Amino acid sequence: MKIAILGGTGSIGEGFALRWASKHDIVVCSRDVDKAIKAADDYSNLLLSKGTLCCGITGCTNETAIQDVDVVVLSVPYKGMVPLLEKLKPFFKDQIVISMVVPMAKNDKFEYTPPEQGSAALEIKSVLPETVKVISAYHNISAKKLADLESTLDYDVVICGDDEDAKKTVMELTHEINNLRPLDGGGLESSYMIESLTPFLINLAIKNGLRDLGVKFL
Amino acid sequence: MKIAILGGTGSIGEGFALRWASKHDIVVCSRDVDKAIKAADDYSNLLLSKGTLCCGITGCTNETAIQDVDVVVLSVPYKGMVPLLEKLKPFFKDQIVISMVVPMAKNDKFEYTPPEQGSAALEIKSVLPETVKVISAYHNISAKKLADLESTLDYDVVICGDDEDAKKTVMELTHEINNLRPLDGGGLESSYMIESLTPFLINLAIKNGLRDLGVKFL
Repeated sequence: MKIAILGGTGSIGEGFALRWASKHDIVVCSRDVDKAIKAADDYSNLLLSKGTLCCGITGCTNETAIQDVDVVVLSVPYKGMVPLLEKLKPFFKDQIVISMVVPMAKNDKFEYTPPEQGSAALEIKSVLPETVKVISAYHNISAKKLADLESTLDYDVVICGDDEDAKKTVMELTHEINNLRPLDGGGLESSYMIESLTPFLINLAIKNGLRDLGVKFL
Repeated sequence: MKIAILGGTGSIGEGFALRWASKHDIVVCSRDVDKAIKAADDYSNLLLSKGTLCCGITGCTNETAIQDVDVVVLSVPYKGMVPLLEKLKPFFKDQIVISMVVPMAKNDKFEYTPPEQGSAALEIKSVLPETVKVISAYHNISAKKLADLESTLDYDVVICGDDEDAKKTVMELTHEINNLRPLDGGGLESSYMIESLTPFLINLAIKNGLRDLGVKFL
């Protein structure tokens, strides 16, 4: 598959690029094309230095990438997400869009601040063309551990979405990252639950002196 | 300590009685005193047959038990909880009340249905005298595994409450149950997060063919 990573120069984007590049073509996207190309080169060199197989990692603008891929990973901050998607809307058709976006605010602790649609995932669905298949996943994966290829990710990934085939594809992509276990979280309307886990985990980590918390259901 | 378990004849109540009886006096409570006495006898006999030390498990009515204990465990269904607490209010003074109550409804899936106070824990606080210390915990522990003394409970228990000493006591009680790890979840206003995890876990279990799910943060 061809996977575009919006926000691909950030650390969670880096992790997905590195983990998926052995089986898929990765397009690292950024508003700043030079930054995207540099990040893609850095990731390729890192994988080459480790002797890892790599299908190809390229860098380009958001607009060019989106038109040309099967899967678009949205690893961007919630702030600015809607204007970004509205600008990019003409380039979407029937791609799978994976949202790991979490709307949250910090007061005395982190709080989940969902939009009126109920979750970032549902808001994304309301903005993009109806033919796009929005899936929510990966909100609670540590960016640091994902980008560290030596790190074993013994976590569960709850995946929500209304299109069963798209959800299956994302479950398979999850299986490709060692030790991650995909779990079906039901329809996209359940996304608020996995989005809201993120501020909860951050608060829990701060309060208990822990770091980079993920979740396992057992 | 002396611990009263409201709803102590149900399976989650049974588990706590069996697990805490080696260090604490347990009072199994029920509206039906005969049922409470029978359950207390059954639990005592089970522990005796296993050669486990037991401080004492007795059965009595809710009213008698509450006045005489340090800790009241609320393991009752949400439905009927408020009328029950209003009836029992005169017997509360400054006990620690542990709520594991989850308001939820089943439609096409299970859904969290918090009261206007924001969570069952905050509603309990609003009903009982101000001197009572409400703590929320244990919402996501499998009743079956808790009652099975051979079962290792390798789970995390997130504990919320506004009284730090009471929270510390409940964290210590949690430590006494082998392999459970207590985590500080912050103030009582954060209880909605751990309460809402319960229907989420039930849905996840149903959807993925799993059973008796608990949570571990790592």
